[in-house]
Amino acid sequence: MTQPFLKANERIDGLPSQNINIIQNPDMFSYSLDAILLAHFADVKGKGKGLSVDLGSGTGAVGLFYAPKVTGEIKLVEIQPELAEMAQRSIELNNLHERVSVVQADMKDIFNEIKPGSVETILTNPPYFPLTETTKTNIDKHYEIARHELMINLPELAQIANKLLKNNGKVYMVHRPERLADIFAAFAARKLMIKRVQFVYGKANREANMVLIEAIKSGRPGGVRIMPPLIAYTDDNDYTSEVHDILYGKAWHE
Amino acid sequence: MTQPFLKANERIDGLPSQNINIIQNPDMFSYSLDAILLAHFADVKGKGKGLSVDLGSGTGAVGLFYAPKVTGEIKLVEIQPELAEMAQRSIELNNLHERVSVVQADMKDIFNEIKPGSVETILTNPPYFPLTETTKTNIDKHYEIARHELMINLPELAQIANKLLKNNGKVYMVHRPERLADIFAAFAARKLMIKRVQFVYGKANREANMVLIEAIKSGRPGGVRIMPPLIAYTDDNDYTSEVHDILYGKAWHE
Repeated sequence: MTQPFLKANERIDGLPSQNINIIQNPDMFSYSLDAILLAHFADVKGKGKGLSVDLGSGTGAVGLFYAPKVTGEIKLVEIQPELAEMAQRSIELNNLHERVSVVQADMKDIFNEIKPGSVETILTNPPYFPLTETTKTNIDKHYEIARHELMINLPELAQIANKLLKNNGKVYMVHRPERLADIFAAFAARKLMIKRVQFVYGKANREANMVLIEAIKSGRPGGVRIMPPLIAYTDDNDYTSEVHDILYGKAWHE
Repeated sequence: MTQPFLKANERIDGLPSQNINIIQNPDMFSYSLDAILLAHFADVKGKGKGLSVDLGSGTGAVGLFYAPKVTGEIKLVEIQPELAEMAQRSIELNNLHERVSVVQADMKDIFNEIKPGSVETILTNPPYFPLTETTKTNIDKHYEIARHELMINLPELAQIANKLLKNNGKVYMVHRPERLADIFAAFAARKLMIKRVQFVYGKANREANMVLIEAIKSGRPGGVRIMPPLIAYTDDNDYTSEVHDILYGKAWHE
């Protein structure tokens, strides 16, 4: 296929290990290591034929990085028209239009487009920061919507995930460690049992700056596994070999 | 002072860094690295003049290892008479009887001995395992009481901690990561805000096998800090330098 037209200020960033390319516009929102680590962390149910949904997909990085791991359909849900349109072009750029699609909509309003109880796997890289008076005044900005809980907060997200998922379906989320108590409370309230957690530490001697979460709908309580620490950078500010492999090594799927 | 008499099967284990010795009886219950790391993890409020309480102290390891960090009074609460008596002898062995004492009692029944709202710092190394049919049949064994939630469970412990603590008083707990969802739920229900968490990993590439928790009574919600990963052993099965220092290095208090 021909290369989709890039608009002003857009560029293409690639993830070599998965051979996926994403159209980015730094004026709006760019994906970061968070998106890559989430797509890598997320497991595949069975042979990966079930429906996967990326809630709040932005330009589609998480869902597209996850796409080579599965064979089933993936829906990217994004409220911002400009980002949804960029995601659509990235789908075409990666020739994934036969099984990846964009739903430009508010995820609170998604149940006509995606049937409750139909989803095997939810991926989500939601806004990290609680609403403050300052953020309320910046409601028109793309970055604010992606970063602050303007359009969606944790209790709402947990409710939507619970409604969309099949029983025993899973939600994978990346978030900030400082929200951990909020995450446990919101998920517990919606019977999303947290089963697996991995903390990402910028360096070995730093506090964690990212947390990866796996939860299962209607799973049995208890039994959280804390995976080995994932250290992003060496003391010399290079990627650690583990993160380097995720970015540049062999593809994640067998 | 003269060396307290050691009974059959008893031995003395020491923590060189703190210069504290504990009378142990492997037939009953022995402290382990958990107790040492908890006492090390626990901060000191101000000049350490406030009352500290070790809830479920066993032979007193946590409270006694913490003692050199503070100048105030420490009460060790232990339900099992044999362990409480050993703790009393360890207090004398370390010449700490002027400010450390044992309360042999059920912690659910402690409010005549320790006034509600009077405690600055609670330390607790509670039973890790939920009750099962098997454990119920072994109710007479010291190890079962120390390891399984026979006499106290997490919601009860959170309730007692909340009642004993001053406002802004802190509880420090060591537990198993698989109980993390239960810990967040129990603490949130009693307004104990989890502020600082450290995971301990047996080796760098293993899942965490221990979690250290700091929570504050009536603190503001949110804002959990995940401290740098604490790795216990090197690939060669030696203590890492960090843990070696905690055991054998300079004293923890300035």
